[in-house]
Amino acid sequence: MNFEEKTLSRREIFQGRVFQVAVDEVELPDGKGVSTRELVFHNGAVCVLPLTEENKILLVKQFRKAIEATSLEIPAGKLEVGENADPKAAALRELEEEIGYRADLELLYDFYTAIGFCNEKVKLYLARNLEKVANPRPQDEDETLALYELDLDQALAAIEAGEICDAKTIMAIQYWQLLESGTVS
Amino acid sequence: MNFEEKTLSRREIFQGRVFQVAVDEVELPDGKGVSTRELVFHNGAVCVLPLTEENKILLVKQFRKAIEATSLEIPAGKLEVGENADPKAAALRELEEEIGYRADLELLYDFYTAIGFCNEKVKLYLARNLEKVANPRPQDEDETLALYELDLDQALAAIEAGEICDAKTIMAIQYWQLLESGTVS
Repeated sequence: MNFEEKTLSRREIFQGRVFQVAVDEVELPDGKGVSTRELVFHNGAVCVLPLTEENKILLVKQFRKAIEATSLEIPAGKLEVGENADPKAAALRELEEEIGYRADLELLYDFYTAIGFCNEKVKLYLARNLEKVANPRPQDEDETLALYELDLDQALAAIEAGEICDAKTIMAIQYWQLLESGTVS
Repeated sequence: MNFEEKTLSRREIFQGRVFQVAVDEVELPDGKGVSTRELVFHNGAVCVLPLTEENKILLVKQFRKAIEATSLEIPAGKLEVGENADPKAAALRELEEEIGYRADLELLYDFYTAIGFCNEKVKLYLARNLEKVANPRPQDEDETLALYELDLDQALAAIEAGEICDAKTIMAIQYWQLLESGTVS
């Protein structure tokens, strides 16, 4: 079966700091004709599921302009240009900047967030052996964050209540449930 | 603690069929000054975890222009304008169009896919009691899909191999693992 959509032309729409936008005209497979694809290009990101010795998750609350509301999320950040070669370093940086810890990291998943129109790929790490950093790198200047520590029941209740409402954080908490049930280790 | 970022002005960049793009100038909380936020607005989507009587998952393979590759995903689709009031109907439509089944649906999660810059919200349903539709609604004209049926071990191997690589499908399969382990029911 032939799936490929050949690019006939590309119209560049927007070059931002965070993402770029283009519209491609494509030739559909099997002579199905021509269509357009609206695309968002993003450099990728990292996020971290930080579990403490007391088996609690560390989360940050922040305002998200896209939804005009605050949300409770695992620490995360965009890959800076040139950082794609060392995403683990980026994850360690975000962990230190956002919550002031360093840790041992293990890659759990590498996933596209919105594959229908966007190429943003996010790496999710499990952080264990958390250690407070004495003088952590400061938060980004345009970020205002508050730190929360929740046990698993509280985290599940926060999903239920909609306070936790983003894919990466729900995915991380599912993984924590799988850890707790002994399904993964 | 004050988190809100007040909008000072908005620049409309792009009005597409699938999403809109804008750049907001915002006033940061606590007198931290001014910054910009690049935003993608999307009408939302639905997706479905279809589990058969034989405890297999039904997946569709399709080409994704944003990543210039095929991927194996749970059935999903955008909400059409006006469909926000009845997302379950949209999920049933996608299930019929993409894989030719109807089913009983249960809402599992409602999540933002890329909360850092995009307001796309996706509802994930569990589909049980699958029944083949005799004359299913046809697939969208610009979609080319192939159907796959995998057991849980095969699905986990497909994640490992990167054939399954998107957030919604990984989240659905983790939920299936939680079902299998008896952690959720």
